[in-house]
Amino acid sequence: MSRPTKSGSDFKGEPSHPGGEYCWGKNGVIALLEGASARCLKVMISKSMHGGASGRIIDLCRASRIPYVITSSQALDSLLGGESHQGVAARVAPSSLLALEDATALLPPPPGPVLAVLLDHVQDPHNLGAMIRSAEAASASFVALPRRRSALPTGTVAKTSAGASLRFPVASAGNVANAVRDMQSAGLWAVGLDMDAPGTIYDAPLPKRCLLVVGGESEGVGRTAFKACDETLRIPISGRAGSLNASVALSIAMFEWARVNL
Amino acid sequence: MSRPTKSGSDFKGEPSHPGGEYCWGKNGVIALLEGASARCLKVMISKSMHGGASGRIIDLCRASRIPYVITSSQALDSLLGGESHQGVAARVAPSSLLALEDATALLPPPPGPVLAVLLDHVQDPHNLGAMIRSAEAASASFVALPRRRSALPTGTVAKTSAGASLRFPVASAGNVANAVRDMQSAGLWAVGLDMDAPGTIYDAPLPKRCLLVVGGESEGVGRTAFKACDETLRIPISGRAGSLNASVALSIAMFEWARVNL
Repeated sequence: MSRPTKSGSDFKGEPSHPGGEYCWGKNGVIALLEGASARCLKVMISKSMHGGASGRIIDLCRASRIPYVITSSQALDSLLGGESHQGVAARVAPSSLLALEDATALLPPPPGPVLAVLLDHVQDPHNLGAMIRSAEAASASFVALPRRRSALPTGTVAKTSAGASLRFPVASAGNVANAVRDMQSAGLWAVGLDMDAPGTIYDAPLPKRCLLVVGGESEGVGRTAFKACDETLRIPISGRAGSLNASVALSIAMFEWARVNL
Repeated sequence: MSRPTKSGSDFKGEPSHPGGEYCWGKNGVIALLEGASARCLKVMISKSMHGGASGRIIDLCRASRIPYVITSSQALDSLLGGESHQGVAARVAPSSLLALEDATALLPPPPGPVLAVLLDHVQDPHNLGAMIRSAEAASASFVALPRRRSALPTGTVAKTSAGASLRFPVASAGNVANAVRDMQSAGLWAVGLDMDAPGTIYDAPLPKRCLLVVGGESEGVGRTAFKACDETLRIPISGRAGSLNASVALSIAMFEWARVNL
């Protein structure tokens, strides 16, 4: 779904606040403090936050010497424009996307299995968050996305990825078709997920060193990006919907890759 | 994610408006008119809606003799509390969930493959919508859910399921553990998805006549429901997140069932 968010940043890549991005929710802030505390600038905890979570968050802040303040729930409401913050938020240093060549250079050498993901204009931050969470869980090496017309890893993405976007490598690509060719040069076999492809992901084992190219919510992968792929495959579906949610489709393909290659 | 919605109905099952539920968005309303026009009471089209979609929607209304009105975009904004309606909404007769025994009675007879899904308190309507969309696409026969503490198939679910919830069978269960036993009596093998299970869904082919039992966003499946299952299995994941989005996990398991059984 593509509900508009209060923050323009999810769709345009501009910071939602001059001071940086925010991450919120108990699990999101704990994941940030445990996995990427260097990116955490400050934590705000509401007076009304109960139970062990606030104590745990304060302990984590102290351990990493991150400033925290106790504030009102209303102040968090107003800061986050009505997001469901569960009484805690953190200010996060702006994320720096990896350069695609740096991400590619870090891939494990042949002949081991490698999975990378290239997103063609995924604009819904909830989809992007779910995709990054699944990519980490499926042992992918990184997710690459074009900076233009894409959701970028901001606060909503941190929350919907259950914190994975704060630690999982996300790389910035320019033109999607060029990025496909660059990763082919690095030795990956490019598979585009296309509902109209004749073959399915189950016809033959997905390649051991694989780039999955997946499109956004409405348009799918652009034709020039598909043309650059080594092959296109579909997930066989029945019923009348004709397609799957983009993050569900990517997750099914990634776990099928993991099933046959890991 | 679990952003609160403007409508209380998604979480409690109460109608959001005394006159019934609403469905919105071009694809959602077209899916309703094509697949479940008997449930459509009235269509509201904004004056500013451009292009072929408004003509198509009006044609579909005329074909099924469903009243439609041309209204302002602002009137739709106000009716739907800011949801992204794309200029069109429909009032939908309250959904009647199937009784579980009626849904079970409609299952294809042995020895053919059968997949049914039982949700243990999925409370996020976006997750429920994605689950119903994937269930239809994976050739499941129905989705069952307890009426209490569950999201119910309302407008947000219709939209996020790309219309699937308006035509796909959804059954009402009481107690989840009792529902597991009822479906076992009907000849299904109950598999609970549990991140802590020792075995994985890939260790052996998923059973041909299968009930998948999946939990909600935070709690997973309740212990008594797991105990009622014939076995519990996990999806093998790596990385630090420790779990998948609930609709992603269900989708991976359903498509693995389809891969080995269809």
